[in-house]
Amino acid sequence: MAGSSLGTIFRISTWGESHGPALGVVIDGCPAGLSLQAGDIQAYLDRRKPGTSSLTTQRKEADEVEILSGVFDGKTTGTPISLLVRNTSQHSADYDEIAKYYRPGHADYTFDSKYGFRDPRGGGRSSGRETIGRVAAGAIACKILKELGIKVKAYTRSIGPVEIDPLRFDEKLILTTSTAMPDAVADKEAVSYLEKTKASLDSSGGCMECVVDGLPAGIGDPVFEKLDANLAKAIMSIGAVKAVEIGDGCLVSQKLGSENNDAFHVNENGTVSKLTNHSGGILGGISDGSQLLIRAHVKPTPSIFRTQQTVDKDGNNIEIQIKGRHDPIIVPRAVVVMECMTAITVLDAMLVNLSSKMDYLHTIYHNPSEE
Amino acid sequence: MAGSSLGTIFRISTWGESHGPALGVVIDGCPAGLSLQAGDIQAYLDRRKPGTSSLTTQRKEADEVEILSGVFDGKTTGTPISLLVRNTSQHSADYDEIAKYYRPGHADYTFDSKYGFRDPRGGGRSSGRETIGRVAAGAIACKILKELGIKVKAYTRSIGPVEIDPLRFDEKLILTTSTAMPDAVADKEAVSYLEKTKASLDSSGGCMECVVDGLPAGIGDPVFEKLDANLAKAIMSIGAVKAVEIGDGCLVSQKLGSENNDAFHVNENGTVSKLTNHSGGILGGISDGSQLLIRAHVKPTPSIFRTQQTVDKDGNNIEIQIKGRHDPIIVPRAVVVMECMTAITVLDAMLVNLSSKMDYLHTIYHNPSEE
Amino acid sequence: MAGSSLGTIFRISTWGESHGPALGVVIDGCPAGLSLQAGDIQAYLDRRKPGTSSLTTQRKEADEVEILSGVFDGKTTGTPISLLVRNTSQHSADYDEIAKYYRPGHADYTFDSKYGFRDPRGGGRSSGRETIGRVAAGAIACKILKELGIKVKAYTRSIGPVEIDPLRFDEKLILTTSTAMPDAVADKEAVSYLEKTKASLDSSGGCMECVVDGLPAGIGDPVFEKLDANLAKAIMSIGAVKAVEIGDGCLVSQKLGSENNDAFHVNENGTVSKLTNHSGGILGGISDGSQLLIRAHVKPTPSIFRTQQTVDKDGNNIEIQIKGRHDPIIVPRAVVVMECMTAITVLDAMLVNLSSKMDYLHTIYHNPSEE
Amino acid sequence: MAGSSLGTIFRISTWGESHGPALGVVIDGCPAGLSLQAGDIQAYLDRRKPGTSSLTTQRKEADEVEILSGVFDGKTTGTPISLLVRNTSQHSADYDEIAKYYRPGHADYTFDSKYGFRDPRGGGRSSGRETIGRVAAGAIACKILKELGIKVKAYTRSIGPVEIDPLRFDEKLILTTSTAMPDAVADKEAVSYLEKTKASLDSSGGCMECVVDGLPAGIGDPVFEKLDANLAKAIMSIGAVKAVEIGDGCLVSQKLGSENNDAFHVNENGTVSKLTNHSGGILGGISDGSQLLIRAHVKPTPSIFRTQQTVDKDGNNIEIQIKGRHDPIIVPRAVVVMECMTAITVLDAMLVNLSSKMDYLHTIYHNPSEE
Repeated sequence: MAGSSLGTIFRISTWGESHGPALGVVIDGCPAGLSLQAGDIQAYLDRRKPGTSSLTTQRKEADEVEILSGVFDGKTTGTPISLLVRNTSQHSADYDEIAKYYRPGHADYTFDSKYGFRDPRGGGRSSGRETIGRVAAGAIACKILKELGIKVKAYTRSIGPVEIDPLRFDEKLILTTSTAMPDAVADKEAVSYLEKTKASLDSSGGCMECVVDGLPAGIGDPVFEKLDANLAKAIMSIGAVKAVEIGDGCLVSQKLGSENNDAFHVNENGTVSKLTNHSGGILGGISDGSQLLIRAHVKPTPSIFRTQQTVDKDGNNIEIQIKGRHDPIIVPRAVVVMECMTAITVLDAMLVNLSSKMDYLHTIYHNPSEE
Repeated sequence: MAGSSLGTIFRISTWGESHGPALGVVIDGCPAGLSLQAGDIQAYLDRRKPGTSSLTTQRKEADEVEILSGVFDGKTTGTPISLLVRNTSQHSADYDEIAKYYRPGHADYTFDSKYGFRDPRGGGRSSGRETIGRVAAGAIACKILKELGIKVKAYTRSIGPVEIDPLRFDEKLILTTSTAMPDAVADKEAVSYLEKTKASLDSSGGCMECVVDGLPAGIGDPVFEKLDANLAKAIMSIGAVKAVEIGDGCLVSQKLGSENNDAFHVNENGTVSKLTNHSGGILGGISDGSQLLIRAHVKPTPSIFRTQQTVDKDGNNIEIQIKGRHDPIIVPRAVVVMECMTAITVLDAMLVNLSSKMDYLHTIYHNPSEE
Repeated sequence: MAGSSLGTIFRISTWGESHGPALGVVIDGCPAGLSLQAGDIQAYLDRRKPGTSSLTTQRKEADEVEILSGVFDGKTTGTPISLLVRNTSQHSADYDEIAKYYRPGHADYTFDSKYGFRDPRGGGRSSGRETIGRVAAGAIACKILKELGIKVKAYTRSIGPVEIDPLRFDEKLILTTSTAMPDAVADKEAVSYLEKTKASLDSSGGCMECVVDGLPAGIGDPVFEKLDANLAKAIMSIGAVKAVEIGDGCLVSQKLGSENNDAFHVNENGTVSKLTNHSGGILGGISDGSQLLIRAHVKPTPSIFRTQQTVDKDGNNIEIQIKGRHDPIIVPRAVVVMECMTAITVLDAMLVNLSSKMDYLHTIYHNPSEE
Repeated sequence: MAGSSLGTIFRISTWGESHGPALGVVIDGCPAGLSLQAGDIQAYLDRRKPGTSSLTTQRKEADEVEILSGVFDGKTTGTPISLLVRNTSQHSADYDEIAKYYRPGHADYTFDSKYGFRDPRGGGRSSGRETIGRVAAGAIACKILKELGIKVKAYTRSIGPVEIDPLRFDEKLILTTSTAMPDAVADKEAVSYLEKTKASLDSSGGCMECVVDGLPAGIGDPVFEKLDANLAKAIMSIGAVKAVEIGDGCLVSQKLGSENNDAFHVNENGTVSKLTNHSGGILGGISDGSQLLIRAHVKPTPSIFRTQQTVDKDGNNIEIQIKGRHDPIIVPRAVVVMECMTAITVLDAMLVNLSSKMDYLHTIYHNPSEE
């Protein structure tokens, strides 16, 4: 259980290194009877594919997914779904040098400390390519949620100092701007900021946001398996994320109770809703029927082309200049990863919730003696 | 697995309601041979005990712990440690009324949505008293870490608008100020702010911070069991926490790579350290040998005495005024909970890490044929 | 995770030692809305209580259960159910001597090997009293299964050379004979055999059987979470069990395919059944709609009063004579433990199965956009 | 968590169908630093490969393994090891017919009951080919155990009425006889018995045995994670196994305590051993330092060529004659599967055991303040 599996019922196990032969994921616990084709998954992988704009690494990878098991006649069978993506554009030679020292901001030193050595090619297992398995699995989770009327959508909220304006929010832009910002004006500013950053051999941090609409109240479990706790874990596990907020997030520490409480309200059709949503759709770790709102703060790409101080494996203080192909910002390609991790977490909580009350047991398992 | 267990090796299962006969925790996976007495645990429970100052609920509870199993002749035996705390000051009558409606900011509505009904007495399982089990288990984790030279310390960083000044940081004050602030000046200001808040029938949010010193590099696992991911889950699972930051946290989204990277450095004695600690002691999900730093933002106590709008169980829009005994702020008593959740998470990662390399296997299991 | 928890959804964590202050269990994942009272559990505990006949240890224990959490207004709330049984008749003095040596057939030596020392009082955690937690949790599982039309029933099949005759099978006798045999003739013979055994300072082995009626087809998961695999684990985990058989069990190794295959058959009402049940109700690890049949072989009580050779803690070969209060056979009191472990395993598989197909998801979570 | 994962630390997740594009396994939690090449794994896969004698199916499969991740420079890196075997000889046409009815003794009916439909090609996920992933993972477990001086060896004990004679036991024969019997005389008899069976369009059951030498005392955990409980689960999870015995197994139910207890003995070199080994190397669920002995009873291949009665999907009683390529007995190819499942279980228990006592923590994590 060295860390590459997640989930109680919908359980994913990812594997693969940046410059190994392939990467992939095994999903166990996907309900049977879901219509599924490679194209459903490919659409999500294409959103994290490199080389699609000047803001991403120029490494060329088709990232084509192959379904190896768990699907028959176009439907999931309930058995493990194995998904495979071959690596094709490994320039391992670029990495010969970095095997000899510890790059600042990377996991080189910590992997060596833990395991005694590491696969240095492209960061090995700690590379962003590890997220291929997450996105492939998440595409399936998103498809199931969609069938249940639940929509998950992540986007870039800010890049460096440039933040989107909620009044200009246009969902369609998420998939068309190179920044994944749903605001054409902010996108333009952010691109210009990133070009300047890149020109100065530097990189930029950013913030991404994810919302979930249509989730019924009652999902998530008290105490340790709270929906927000599991979302925090899932999102914080994305490399480079350094903070996770739910609803009003950090702001709550400066709020009064009278400002932060959301009043409940009965609507004309008899449904219950809240007049505000400071809680971000979660109360006591359980969904409250409002929109889920999660925010993640992502550090700047650690691979910058400036001269940096560090240490080599022989224990000398040295100066280095990193080469290779690197994104000047992680956020635009990480947005789909956040969307997928959110979907996986929400779906798993919904599957666990099927056991929450006797009513559900009676609904599914009819007692023949009572018929 | 409805959510009340946490951990892979050092696994805790908490139970109990605010107004039930008792609360407690079962710890399975505690290594054998640790010297342990009730006093070791009581010292931590006393830090979260109510009624110790004007800033906490006036509910009087001794919160005395009883060790029911897993300890023999003053030492842990390796078998489950069951810890029990009896409730003695239940004023359940206070809660008759709240069974009929949903308090804003509380889990009343979400529990009903999930389970069909709930134990309304003092919030039942969603009460802050649930953390008794966490603290009792965390006291043991802290004791083990201390034996290994690792120190975990949490404190209040801010209350409403009042923040501590790092230049005035005095660790001893954490246990003596009623705010758990390690800064006498800030403590005084915060107390005055809270009194004003209380007088206006309101409550306040706040921020707490936890640091871990002495943790070796190499702890935590890649991908989903990253140390920061598990800390985020553990801390976000504390009721009322709405945001978790590691190291520079939210600030990273506005930083450049050249500002955020921590340079590695070889010290005169040959050890490796970092010249800065923006990472908060974690790189790639694995400890990097620097101080761990985690921050948590806590919402204001939802139980305020002002008139609030809400919904009753019969589907009417109503106005309510909450009665009972409530803390005007959650933070001072939650600080020890954060310390305990951090300790539990770090210790569990250290136990999992014992399987990380063949060297450790060879160290513990000598191959007789090679002797 | 040192071994005292079991189950994926209906998860039990037992704790306690033979001569500690108490024993108990925490059940997490019990669906909300089950009517539950202490009496439901007490009835099962009474079946494993010592001192009820000359065939059991004369240790007098009321074994009264207290429900400490998870039940409100007579119904389970969906939160952890904590159950406690106080020890009252500890004669720890009886055990002073056995701390000094390793009793043959007991876990003294293996606990010392593992943990470096042990709680020697009454076998500590390896005592048969550990099963109190199993039975208390199993009583709840049995109650849920009963509501779903599923009946679990275990009994003694043989004691030493005395086997029950299926033609004389009378279910009512299970609860009234001191052997738990459902056959009055065999019971009488077995009692006489056991008296002889006891008189010669010896003990006897035996075999117990458990059947489950009413279980629908489709329960259990392929590969590692097969229903028979989990039953084998659950039953083999009962102290003293050395073999587990499903259906025809050991006999299959000498059978031909044409003898062992069960033909399927459509009944007049259109339901499918099997003409024989060599499979014991499980095919490919999944229930096939026939009666489940599990058999367990239990070794003789290792505590015998004859002189035995063994080793003391200082490394000397010695002769010992065990004192204290011991059952001359384990089986009659273990029958209810087998029944409970079977119920826990079957219920957990049914809860996991709620996520097996999209149909169930659509049944429980209506998609509002499709209404 | 639909059942295809096993293990707490050394955790394997298998995937793949008999007639899908490929099968494989992901192993997470393999310690870093183990020398590993494809050949290490291929040697074990070759032992379960079909088509090597007249006693196995004539399906021709190279079953060549590809290592896709987790190994760098010939050593395991501590990250997930993904192993892939392509299917090459799918005759799916053979299976068109069986999609329409339920084969007796197979999982066709139970899969349909559970999932609503199934992949009928070659049994889909319930095929014996599923064990490829088990064997590939088990080869790695065996290699680690061997480095620690622990040897796991399984063999055929009996086929139909033909049993091996312990006096003629010759380990080398396990890998050379087509029956995997370590007894040349029994092998010859068994082959002749199987040819007769085959000629009469029938199949045969058999029994296999596995021994583990060199395992230190103290491995396994009390209560539910007993070593014998986990072995029972692991072995019972192999398709067609209907009974599992530890040590004297079923015989204990007819034994007296004085016959069944194993006396401890101090040897001249001061080590402790037992004068007999009725316990099969396990006491109280924990290894006792003697040889582990596990026995498994395997049902006859359900695919027989005789006419059989069954039911079709439209609910008619029909007669069928199964075609295709089938082994007349499962045992000879299942022996290596049993060996692998045993190795995986024992290794996982050893990894978990690294957390059993404070001594081990102090050994691995030196407290710098005490140096």
